[in-house]
Amino acid sequence: MQGLHLTADLYRCRCAPEWLTDAAGLGSRCREAVAAAGLQPVGELFHAFNPMGDAPAGVTATILLAESHLCVHTWPELGAVTLDVYVCNFGGDHSTKARTLMQALLALFDPEEARQHSLARGTPVATDTTNP
Amino acid sequence: MQGLHLTADLYRCRCAPEWLTDAAGLGSRCREAVAAAGLQPVGELFHAFNPMGDAPAGVTATILLAESHLCVHTWPELGAVTLDVYVCNFGGDHSTKARTLMQALLALFDPEEARQHSLARGTPVATDTTNP
Repeated sequence: MQGLHLTADLYRCRCAPEWLTDAAGLGSRCREAVAAAGLQPVGELFHAFNPMGDAPAGVTATILLAESHLCVHTWPELGAVTLDVYVCNFGGDHSTKARTLMQALLALFDPEEARQHSLARGTPVATDTTNP
Repeated sequence: MQGLHLTADLYRCRCAPEWLTDAAGLGSRCREAVAAAGLQPVGELFHAFNPMGDAPAGVTATILLAESHLCVHTWPELGAVTLDVYVCNFGGDHSTKARTLMQALLALFDPEEARQHSLARGTPVATDTTNP
């Protein structure tokens, strides 16, 4: 269960606006990015929220992986996105694949600012460097 | 997009073993816990991995929320589980609901040891206390 959980909160995304509103399109792009990173999808779920008034509504794209999961949430009214890429190291160290997937999504959304965190998951107490 | 992302890595779970192997049963229990916490599900995806040999295989349960998501991954061969409860504060502060959901899942799995982290998501740079 040891693994790497990368998070990124993206602000003022400069990508085409539809990447933040088109659940099927974003889901398809996520599927491609997962495959390109060498990760193994085992399920997927894409959800488009209902617009309130004239404001565009966000979407959620989740791909379950043999290695754990990818979750994307968008806030088109803010040009904002949150990303979660979590891979456990079952069968090998998948950290590089996780970073490749994160970089692909950062390139897709092209934010002016990104706040990123890295969390070691499932790490024995004595060697966990994230909470010394 | 401001919100709270709670993670927990659970070791040596003392619950009934089927909570770590029965995707439909775990999914149903997660659905109940989401409702009891006052969070709003908008989609769900439960996946059971194929056993390799005689060892039991894990499951993944994901519930997409109006407020963001819940993800549960299990490793029955280790008695281990990882939990992610992420709620954005769209329409109000849902932090208490997130903590309620996390507590319900901790009580369900009953681990001997739990390593928990809390990450502020979507927080402006000047006030983010997780990465000073």
